[in-house]
This record gives sequence, C-alpha cells and structure tokens, in this order.
Amino acid sequence: MKIALCQINPTVGAIGRNRDKISEWYQKAIDVGADLVVFPELVIIGYPPQDLLLREDFILEANEALSWLAANATVPMIIGNAFRENGNLYNCAFVCGNGRIINYYKKMLLPTYDVFDEVRYFSPGETTGVIEIEIESEKIKIGLQICEDLWDKDYACNITDSLKENGAQLMINISASPYRADRLTDRQTLIETKVSETGLSFFYCNLVGAQDELIFDGQSLAYDGGGKLIGQGKAFKEDLIIVDLDHPKPIITKPDVREEKIYNALVLGVRDYFQKTGHSEAVLGLSGGIDSSLTACIAVDALGAENIHGVSMPSQYSSDHSMDDAEILAHNLGVEYRSIPIETIVGQFGDVLTESFSGTESGVAEENIQARIRGSLLMALSNKFNWLVLSTGNKTELAMGYCTLYGDMNGGLAVISDLSKTDVYALSRWVNTKAGIDRIPINSIEKPPSAELAPDQVDPFDYDVVSPLVTAMVEDEKSPTELIEEGADPELVKDISRRIRINEYKRRQAAPGLRVTSKAFGIGRRVPIVNKFDELIP
Amino acid sequence: MKIALCQINPTVGAIGRNRDKISEWYQKAIDVGADLVVFPELVIIGYPPQDLLLREDFILEANEALSWLAANATVPMIIGNAFRENGNLYNCAFVCGNGRIINYYKKMLLPTYDVFDEVRYFSPGETTGVIEIEIESEKIKIGLQICEDLWDKDYACNITDSLKENGAQLMINISASPYRADRLTDRQTLIETKVSETGLSFFYCNLVGAQDELIFDGQSLAYDGGGKLIGQGKAFKEDLIIVDLDHPKPIITKPDVREEKIYNALVLGVRDYFQKTGHSEAVLGLSGGIDSSLTACIAVDALGAENIHGVSMPSQYSSDHSMDDAEILAHNLGVEYRSIPIETIVGQFGDVLTESFSGTESGVAEENIQARIRGSLLMALSNKFNWLVLSTGNKTELAMGYCTLYGDMNGGLAVISDLSKTDVYALSRWVNTKAGIDRIPINSIEKPPSAELAPDQVDPFDYDVVSPLVTAMVEDEKSPTELIEEGADPELVKDISRRIRINEYKRRQAAPGLRVTSKAFGIGRRVPIVNKFDELIP
Repeated sequence: MKIALCQINPTVGAIGRNRDKISEWYQKAIDVGADLVVFPELVIIGYPPQDLLLREDFILEANEALSWLAANATVPMIIGNAFRENGNLYNCAFVCGNGRIINYYKKMLLPTYDVFDEVRYFSPGETTGVIEIEIESEKIKIGLQICEDLWDKDYACNITDSLKENGAQLMINISASPYRADRLTDRQTLIETKVSETGLSFFYCNLVGAQDELIFDGQSLAYDGGGKLIGQGKAFKEDLIIVDLDHPKPIITKPDVREEKIYNALVLGVRDYFQKTGHSEAVLGLSGGIDSSLTACIAVDALGAENIHGVSMPSQYSSDHSMDDAEILAHNLGVEYRSIPIETIVGQFGDVLTESFSGTESGVAEENIQARIRGSLLMALSNKFNWLVLSTGNKTELAMGYCTLYGDMNGGLAVISDLSKTDVYALSRWVNTKAGIDRIPINSIEKPPSAELAPDQVDPFDYDVVSPLVTAMVEDEKSPTELIEEGADPELVKDISRRIRINEYKRRQAAPGLRVTSKAFGIGRRVPIVNKFDELIP
Repeated sequence: MKIALCQINPTVGAIGRNRDKISEWYQKAIDVGADLVVFPELVIIGYPPQDLLLREDFILEANEALSWLAANATVPMIIGNAFRENGNLYNCAFVCGNGRIINYYKKMLLPTYDVFDEVRYFSPGETTGVIEIEIESEKIKIGLQICEDLWDKDYACNITDSLKENGAQLMINISASPYRADRLTDRQTLIETKVSETGLSFFYCNLVGAQDELIFDGQSLAYDGGGKLIGQGKAFKEDLIIVDLDHPKPIITKPDVREEKIYNALVLGVRDYFQKTGHSEAVLGLSGGIDSSLTACIAVDALGAENIHGVSMPSQYSSDHSMDDAEILAHNLGVEYRSIPIETIVGQFGDVLTESFSGTESGVAEENIQARIRGSLLMALSNKFNWLVLSTGNKTELAMGYCTLYGDMNGGLAVISDLSKTDVYALSRWVNTKAGIDRIPINSIEKPPSAELAPDQVDPFDYDVVSPLVTAMVEDEKSPTELIEEGADPELVKDISRRIRINEYKRRQAAPGLRVTSKAFGIGRRVPIVNKFDELIP
C-alpha cells in the first residue's frame, strides 16, 4: 500500500484556490500510484483562520469546497476541514473516496495556549477516530488524529493508545504545527515513543507555509511499525512524500544546522507574507549595523535582489563607516541602494520645536525625532511605490524597549523580531560561512552596536550578558528570583524585568513578527499593558 | 441580615495594594453593620490578568494576599481569587471568616470568546457552589456563582437552577463584567428571569475600573426574592452598596441616557489608563474637527483641563476655520494650546525625496507625510515632557483604513476608536446639551469632515450611509450578502467589506482603544492579516 503525504501551502481564506491546489496535488499523488492521499489539518481554509471561523458564510464555503473534492475523489483521501454539527463547530479529518465523504473524525484535544485558541472556536470531539477504509479490496483500520491529539501528555486521555485499543492498524496524524527551533526533534521523539508503544506505523502530514506571525515548516514524517523513519518531507517547501508500506525504505537524514533552519524559516516567512498579501518589493533602512544587514540578506533570499530597496538615511551623528558598511552590503547583495540624508529635516523639527523645547536638555526626544524621520521616509517610499517596509529590530531590543515606536519599529513585517541579539550574530556569521564570502560586511559584525542617534553613542547594554537573560525570562519563562538564585546579577535582572514589563505598550503596536522560538512577542504572549506585578518590588 | 457589595477598582498585578484596598473596604462595610461582605471576581489580582496567570510567582503572591485577608477576617467575606489545586488553576470565589478560609467555589462556565480567554488559563470547576455560612448564629446556604455562570444560555448546564436545587437560599454572583452600551439592561433582564424562576434574592457584585481596552462599569445589583430591585451600585465609580435583606427598600432608577453612559465610560477609561500607567498629562492634536474635539472634552473631564495640551499643526492645506475652531475649542475647555506649523518640515521632506519621487504624481504618499510629521511632533512633546499622546480616530475611519499608520494613529491610548462616526456626532451634541453651552464649537459639528491633507479635500464617504453599514458588519457581524439582501447598495457593501479586510494590518498596529460596544477592534476581534476570504468575490 502506497501512502502519499501532500505537504502543501494553502492561504487562509482562499478557499477556492486551496481547493484547486488540493485537487492538483491529489492527482499528482494518484499519478505516482498512491492508494491513500493525506492532506494537513484545516487545509481547505488555511491555519489559523482565527475569527473567520465565526462567520457562517466562511464555514458554508469551506463545506462546498469539501463536497466538491469528495465528489471528485476516487482513491481514498484524508483531509482537514471545519464542520458544523448540531450547532457546534468541529476541527475534523474527513475521509473521502468513491465520490463521497466516507467518514470523519472530530479533533479531541484542542490546544488553547501560546499561539493557539482552538477552544474559542471548536468543540472537542468525544470519540476516537478509528476509520475503516478499503484499499485494493483489503480493509484497513486507520487511527486518525489531528495535530494536538498526538501531544497528549498534559491531557487526561492518551489518544494514540486509545486508537490502538480500538483496533487501529496504522496511525495518521494531520497537523498544522508551527515551526520553532528544534521542533522537528520534539516531533520525532514523540512519534518514535508512540510507535514503540503501539508497534504501528505512523504517518504525520504537516502544513507548510507562513501565516502572519506563524511559519509552518512541513517536514512531514513517516515511520514503519518498527520505528524506522521511512519518509520525511522537505523543510519549508511544499512536498509530496510517497511511502510504500509493503516495501518501506529507511531513510537517513542529515543532522539539522540550527542557524540554517532558522534562516530558512525566516526566508519562507518573508516570501509568504509578501505573496499572500500581494506585495513583491520591499524597502528597508540600511544603517550599516548587523540587524538591518541580516534582514536584508533574508529579504534578498526570499524575494530576489531585484525586489529589494535599501535606504541609508544618515544624520550628523552617522559615522562614515556606517554609511560605507551599508553601501558595501547593498553592493554585496546586489540590491538597489539610495542615500537620503535627514539632517535638514532634523534641523526643521528643531526649529519648529524651539519654543516648546526651550530650556530643556537634549535627550530621548531629540534622538527619537531622527528615528521617526527615517521611519516616515521609508513609509513615504512605501506609499509611493507600493513597497512593503521591513522592520529590522531584534527580540532583545524589543524586550528592553530599545527601539523607537513609529520610528525604526515601522514596518509591515518584523523579520528578525524573534531573534535574540546572540542569534542575530550567529545567523550573520552562518550567512557568510554558507556563502563562502562576506555577504554581510565583517565590520558590521565586529563593530560595537550603536543606534547613532547622539554623538559617539553605543548601545548601553552588554549583549553577551543581557541577551541570554532576556531569552531566559521570555522564552524559558524563568522568574527573576530563579535567575538570581542561578547566579545572575540581581540589579541587572531587576532592570531587565522592569524594562520588559514597562515596554509592553511599544510591543502592542509593533509590526507582526515572524515566530521562530517557543515564545515570541505577539499573539502567543498576552501580557497586559497596565501591569503592576513586579515580583522583586513589593 | 445586611449584605454589602464592595464595588471596587483594583489594578492588575498590584496585589499588595489591592489587598490593602480590599481590607479598607471590608472595614468600611463592617462599620456600617454588614453581616456579609462581597467583593468582585479575581479582585485580588485584577481582571483580566492575562498571561500573568501563567507565572507561578504571581499565583503564589495572590495566595499570600488571600491568606492574609482570611486571617484578618471576622464577619464572612466573599472574594475572588485564582487558585491552583492538583496542578490545575481555577477561578474561585472564597468564603472567609473567623480568621480562616471557610470554603471556596470553582467557576464552572469559563468564557472563551470575544475579549475572554479563560480556558487558556483556567480549568472548569465541576460542582456547584452551595456554601453554608453562619450569620448571627443562623445558618444560611448561599448559592455562589462567578460572572459567566449567570450567562448559561449557551452551555449545557443551568447553574442558577442547579444551585436552587441544591438548597441555596440566596444567590450571590461575583463578576468582572465589562461595560458596553446597554449592558446593564442585559444583566437586569437576565437576573430578573433567574429571580422569577427561583424565587430567591440575588446579589450581583461587579468590578469597576478600566484595564487596557476594557472598562468595568460597576452598577452592581441586588434583588429581593420577589424580583424587586433593592440595591444598585453607581456607574463607573467605586461604591459600597449595603442592603438589609430583612427590611429591603425597593429603589427606583432613572432610565439610562445612552450618550451619557458611553461618555462616562470613556472618561473612566482615560482616567484609569493614565493613573494605572503612572501618567498625569495628555497631549493631542487639535485639527478643529469633531473627532479631536470630542476626544479633548473626554480628556478634560478625565484628567482636568490643566493636564491637557492641545496642539494645532497647520499645513498649507489647513483652512482658517480649522485653526480657529481648534483655538476656540481649547479656549472653551481651558486647556493649554499651541500652534506648530508644519509647512517648512513638509518642504524639507519634499526636497530630500525629490529624486526618489521624480516623475510621480502627488497623492497618498505626500498626504501621509503631513500626518506623520504631526504624529512625530506629538511624540516629540510626549518624549520631552512625559505627556501621553491620545489618538483621536473613530471606529468608522479605523474600519475603512481612512487613517495614517504612524501618523494620526499615533498614541498611547485611542479614546474614541470604538465610536462610529454617527456616535461621535451624537456624543458631541450631548456634550454641548449637557453643558448648556457649546464646549465643542458648533462649526466643528456642522462642517463637512475633512482630513485637510490636500487642497479642498473632504472625506470621501457619506458617513450617514457608511457608518451604519460598518457598524452592521463589525458589531452586528452581518455578512455582506445579508446586508445586500436587506437593501444596501451592493457596490458600497463590497467596497466597505474589502476595506475592512485589507486594513487589518493598520489596526494590528493601532493603539489600544477603549471598548464600549459588543465588538471592538482589539483583543476581542482576531482576524488574520493574510486573509483572502471575500464572500462576494469568489
């Protein structure tokens, strides 16, 4: 029996086009001899559809698409869709074949944490999904599960065991599981455990493609009943994985290079955001610093150098090396480059504010004016030429509030906002190593980071110390007390904790940022702005 | 028996201060002879605490505060707090007295829709809360419920009936129920039904105060077993409602004036956002238009005229009447007023962009530059003087995307972003009627709305038609097809529907806006940016 996993990239809400894509891949799978064709979770509507699920017209249109696919199905197909029954909405896996819907399973475990809100929309199914299908006149009982059903550790029931107990002969899990660093290993470890517990082969079909902040990595998996890996989908690309269960061929995969995976995730994130929102060209400010340099590389690899516009916007505080580094980068990457000096505009702001500011010392207000002029210039180019602005801030800065709202935070998409400063360096070095040449000028990597908004300014943080502490607090969700007990400097921990808390208001207005860690700023982290909880300051 | 409802205003996360406030109000209630003192839902930590609930140190500190309150309790007290038991977190009502926790009830119905995410944090309780307490050596069985437990229409179980069946002799509901227009009537109608079904007296203690986007209105309620209203808390103010159940006195309330309620809600929203984030002064752009005029009035009533700074920022396209109207408004309200002309800065932007823009026609890019200069000037004043910027856009504009991101959308708080243009007019007229003089210049109300970003520009919408259609789509969640069936212009409906969809990206970066309707843009409406669902364009 040949099973095909169709790891495809739908678009949220594009029901008609998703249906056509499914139909096309279904045919491809049949053409290579598939006896059973599997698609990911909610693939007809895209994931996560969020509040579109509250619209009855949306559910109806999804149902019509499913009916059409079922009516045109010959060999069995398993496909995810939303379905209303007795007033409740369910996240379902439909089995179609012979021109009809044969059966369906309603997802039992509904993730409602981090970026997931499934209980907001769906009711849980109450019975496990052992569904019998006929393949070449032989009947086989399939144990159907949907995404979270596999991750049953924190739930009262063990879905996989229960499927086995109810007679399942092989497991199929259809997923929309977002990427984050090391997620593949998590999935492999878990599935290998399930296979060793049940002795059943296991097919895991994951979505690919990006949706707002989320990046789905594909990397579908197939294991035989002995726990051998017999199929794996590409990372960050659509793929058709076909596995012959009667003659399985074990495959060997190369170990992941962490930086490569994260980088490729971001490339897909940028490409899909542009394609799916109907943009093709990007504009970004090039400061000569490492953040904008890495962002530019990712943009070039996602959209092509010919679609990237780099803008240097020097002020009186910009150093010569910054302008040089920005120009060298643009040259290395082959992107269009222009310089728009902002000194005269800064001067005019100073003039009109003379009376209001008289008697005050120059400080943050004056610095931010420069950042906001730059942000406004990028938006002017964006408005004029329909280029989408990429913002270039990293996660460490965003945590600390070391960024200007309506200034350098401007953008339709924040490309590296889920990368710590440490990871920005690691990925930049990887970019150069991978290319075999310095795409990113070595000076941008080695010089001390500076916002260059005041004379001889350098960033007021030791990133080697601050960046890991921010990661520990945000991603590992460690409390300040824990970190101090582990030996971190108490005053520094207090300061970082306070900054993370009081800068929530900036992040609330930040551009959507591509998520590549277990806890990104954005929809998966919901912290109030008005928040007086400070463990260390009673 | 005298029951006291303490309708107080805690701050999210300020556990120590909330505990002290509770203690103080508890004493006040005892001083006026209360035999039972009731506080709102989750009052020790504030509502909604969002992801603070995921922090173990937060839950621990809340428990310590509860223990302290219990240890110091004499007469019985009912109080809301989060509580972990066997690894699960519950939203609980604790009954304390005689120096200890006597008993507790775990909320059964957990709202997970619109602005609510309770399943993200809490497990549901499984048994109804009939709790016996002793008052003046008499035992009484109280039917305890928490907020959503009352709104059981869409759930499988009827909590109120079940409490009665289990022997409850009076009902107490502790709530954190956010305001929206006409919410009081919804609550009254529902409670009156429950009272008439059970014949039991009903005490409803609601939170008051604002938290980020949400405004809690108080307006606690008490009914005797015959369905007569015997107590009602003030709207938008802390209040101690004391009701003698042995000698209940029916009260008569005045019918609501819709505009007054909404206006007062917004006043509280502004005041609490400032107080709870540690700000006292506000700055806003005064264009002479109705939106900024109404926002200024609200700000003055919330913070005092002496704390409001109005800024006119005329360009070459600003009409004389606009500048006059802005100045008259500032004079009427008694707020500080300054004018900062932006023409020279606009000119400099034009100069530095000459090469980039050469050969293009003037349009949105040039218009937005003006809005962004204004936004940057307000932020400069904000950064310099620690004034918080108020943004002044209304809901109709925000829906249609008729606003400039990083321009007039700038602000720490969006005051009227949940008011339709129709409501902006209604409230402005009410403001003047109420004052008996024109606080808002009549010209601002009567002239055609204009952004004044281009020569002789007026807003390209007939708000009398567009505003109700936007409300129908966003608040009443009507589909375009339904609206067309009801007689709306199909082309206009398509255009509005499309604009609402494609401008999601702007709203994602908008300032938090005060919610006063059943469906506001913000945390209660989660629509993807990448969204190709367009019912009318297959």
